[in-house]
Amino acid sequence: MNLPAQPDFTKSASSSSFTFLVPSWSESFCGCSRVVMRTPYFSKWSCGKQPDAFENARVCMAPRATVVKDASPVVVPSGSSDKGKGTKVMIIGGDGYCGWATALHLSNLGYEVAIVDSLIRRLFDEQLGTQTLTPIASLKNRVKKWKQLSGKQISVYVGDICDFEFLEDAFKSFDPQAVVHYGEQRSAPYSMMDRSRAVFTQHNNVIGTMNVLFAIKEFANDCHLVKLGTMGEYGTPNIDIEEGFITITHNGRTDTLPYPKQASSFYHLSKVHDSHNIAFACKAWKIRATDLNQGVVYGVSTPETSLDVELINRLDYDGVFGTALNRFCVQAAVGHPLTVYGKGGQTRGYLDIRDTVQCIELAIANPAKPGEFRVFNQFTEQFSVNDLARVVTQAGEKLGIEVKAINVPNPRVEAEEHYYNAKHTKLGELGLQPHLLSDALLDSLLNFAVIYKDRVDMAQIMPTVSWKKAGVKPVTVATSL
Amino acid sequence: MNLPAQPDFTKSASSSSFTFLVPSWSESFCGCSRVVMRTPYFSKWSCGKQPDAFENARVCMAPRATVVKDASPVVVPSGSSDKGKGTKVMIIGGDGYCGWATALHLSNLGYEVAIVDSLIRRLFDEQLGTQTLTPIASLKNRVKKWKQLSGKQISVYVGDICDFEFLEDAFKSFDPQAVVHYGEQRSAPYSMMDRSRAVFTQHNNVIGTMNVLFAIKEFANDCHLVKLGTMGEYGTPNIDIEEGFITITHNGRTDTLPYPKQASSFYHLSKVHDSHNIAFACKAWKIRATDLNQGVVYGVSTPETSLDVELINRLDYDGVFGTALNRFCVQAAVGHPLTVYGKGGQTRGYLDIRDTVQCIELAIANPAKPGEFRVFNQFTEQFSVNDLARVVTQAGEKLGIEVKAINVPNPRVEAEEHYYNAKHTKLGELGLQPHLLSDALLDSLLNFAVIYKDRVDMAQIMPTVSWKKAGVKPVTVATSL
Repeated sequence: MNLPAQPDFTKSASSSSFTFLVPSWSESFCGCSRVVMRTPYFSKWSCGKQPDAFENARVCMAPRATVVKDASPVVVPSGSSDKGKGTKVMIIGGDGYCGWATALHLSNLGYEVAIVDSLIRRLFDEQLGTQTLTPIASLKNRVKKWKQLSGKQISVYVGDICDFEFLEDAFKSFDPQAVVHYGEQRSAPYSMMDRSRAVFTQHNNVIGTMNVLFAIKEFANDCHLVKLGTMGEYGTPNIDIEEGFITITHNGRTDTLPYPKQASSFYHLSKVHDSHNIAFACKAWKIRATDLNQGVVYGVSTPETSLDVELINRLDYDGVFGTALNRFCVQAAVGHPLTVYGKGGQTRGYLDIRDTVQCIELAIANPAKPGEFRVFNQFTEQFSVNDLARVVTQAGEKLGIEVKAINVPNPRVEAEEHYYNAKHTKLGELGLQPHLLSDALLDSLLNFAVIYKDRVDMAQIMPTVSWKKAGVKPVTVATSL
Repeated sequence: MNLPAQPDFTKSASSSSFTFLVPSWSESFCGCSRVVMRTPYFSKWSCGKQPDAFENARVCMAPRATVVKDASPVVVPSGSSDKGKGTKVMIIGGDGYCGWATALHLSNLGYEVAIVDSLIRRLFDEQLGTQTLTPIASLKNRVKKWKQLSGKQISVYVGDICDFEFLEDAFKSFDPQAVVHYGEQRSAPYSMMDRSRAVFTQHNNVIGTMNVLFAIKEFANDCHLVKLGTMGEYGTPNIDIEEGFITITHNGRTDTLPYPKQASSFYHLSKVHDSHNIAFACKAWKIRATDLNQGVVYGVSTPETSLDVELINRLDYDGVFGTALNRFCVQAAVGHPLTVYGKGGQTRGYLDIRDTVQCIELAIANPAKPGEFRVFNQFTEQFSVNDLARVVTQAGEKLGIEVKAINVPNPRVEAEEHYYNAKHTKLGELGLQPHLLSDALLDSLLNFAVIYKDRVDMAQIMPTVSWKKAGVKPVTVATSL
């Protein structure tokens, strides 16, 4: 199956009928007819009935449709299905938010994809009593559906990369030419809940990555490691942030050295540790590695995940796993004030999930050299939290949703007003075509949130994890949430 | 018991009799009479018999005495026994090379000392088939002997700090005001033997330190953490190495940031990880911490460890745990060529173990402020490996020992010719009186080695661990040593 290079977009909506958006996988929806493909995310439907009367939607929870204005079509990344032909890519953490989108994107481009995942992200949800806003299918059903729709097989290895016997078997069995490593506990608040989760996070992330390094060295020495780091490794220095390295002149001498790291949670620190370990492995063992210091990812859909309800990606809005923009959109949709932590001047790099998958594609297509440890800053735009609150408020207004923002006590320890200027040119030089934050994206995100708002657990919205209070007593759901 | 401020040094040796050195704890030695206390390490004895005829020495393995020239007396650190009165210091790793010397030094100064140790360093020796050159007593007997001699009690908590229940109990029971944390796997080659030991090293060191941070936060928030890092965290940059932080002006802006780290083994990397974790904990939780980036320690005795055979410190000479200068002295003593790795231009900071204990004393007496993460570079002089080979060769000549150096293939991945200029002024500002590398020290170290040379296992001398060959197959003693 080849995806259309552009969505099927026709300005033919009937002005006399009631139009609304539903997810694009909804082939039949209450007997109404689809009138126009608006974005990869939504189809526009036309019907005489009121939206609230719709029933029997194909999605698990009956979505509520909502009236929206037209928005520009989203550009689907160009590419042919033969691009990756013959290249085997192992995606560790391929069942997660970025990993699943990446797996489908690369599979669609013709890469031979294997997902390695312990599925522990799903366990976290069970244990915390949280769930993705969007109902996601099991990994088994996801892969099955993808095979049905595309004809392409994604291999699956279910296990823990901290278990080296398992990882060894996966490497020997699949023999990857590139490994995309998302397989880490990726929530800063989770890592700050209590001692045992802090320890889990650093153990899981650091030892898992060490195992991947040893596996590459021993079983696939020419394999290119594409490792997800985070922009949070740099903290908020008062000088420009470079991409991984900085040239320093000091006392009359000059050297180019790793950019100083100032991470602000045990999670972010685990990525700092990974980066140092990988840099060493590249030097000692001539491994090829790309460290992608990714910004905050927003959005939920890519062209591939929009094809069917069983391919839908996860969207976290809770105080532990939800990230800023996604969380704000869900808050807006359910009428909860946007929770700006502290003064809201915290500035970070952001990117659309469609750019995440594009960046991975570019990194794989242009591998690091043997022994090279290169670092790309993977984001497209900088925003402060206040910026995000502003754009979500404006987008809400256009959809007729009244949005308010409140400043809540900052649960984190971080500067709330600071200089921030991070370079991010290397992926652009490789050909990244950014999807900048747009009304269309906000519309679709907000609409997703509106559609699924019955699934929102209001108790999960406020932050519950305090950096300063992280203690040794294990936090159980019963006492904390 | 107060130690003498200076050793009992009298130039009254009889020139007509045969003079030789034995360890200073030897109260009786083959019926001969002690004529002069030369250093804290050795007493000079006078006897008509040939040294080889001596038997019944009190040390475990019969030492061979050797004729030596006079050397300058070693300066015993000044201090009164009341200096540390009322201050409780927990020494994690207090059974190890630096830890044991520190425990006795602080106890002698009046600090209330508790040793926390899993004793795993002794297990490493058993598993690798190695042993310290100097026969060390059990921790139980060490502490008992110290109580007999000094009247001072050192508490002992035997357990693993990765086991938080144990650590919590030790903290609550002892309630430390300062924690000196040596409790880490400290050999770079050990961490590079195989995957499981690399993983063990990072897990043990990083998680152990995280547990210490949580224990301080929860049970002893005002407690000062004195953490042993390593100069190896910095690597060998082409600019001057500062103490922990560097002020960088970049694109017209200036900030003082953590000094970039470029560690070169999984062990050294574990210390880099620790440093980042501790810096964060200081910021988030207002913990006080001093990170001592220590150079390579040489020497075996301090005034306290020299008092009795049961207080003797360990001296490692093997290819895994032995460090450069100590190893060279033992090699010289047994007639093995000094093993210079590669070109021998590798330059590092070094210090006498008597300065290690002094530095710890100074750090404790001048604690970091709440929330402060400060870094001291803890060494007194820089030497290249070739420098060390040269001074050991010269010292050997004076003792009538012919010493040769050979260049062996470098088992490590490191620059063999490089710029190196590391600052180390902060401990001097606090009052450190360095013991610079001297003929006296080399004499005493060489003599120690000569005395115990029958304990040397020649098979342990050559390096067996290759950085490039570190693999996933567990290295067992049977196949590797």
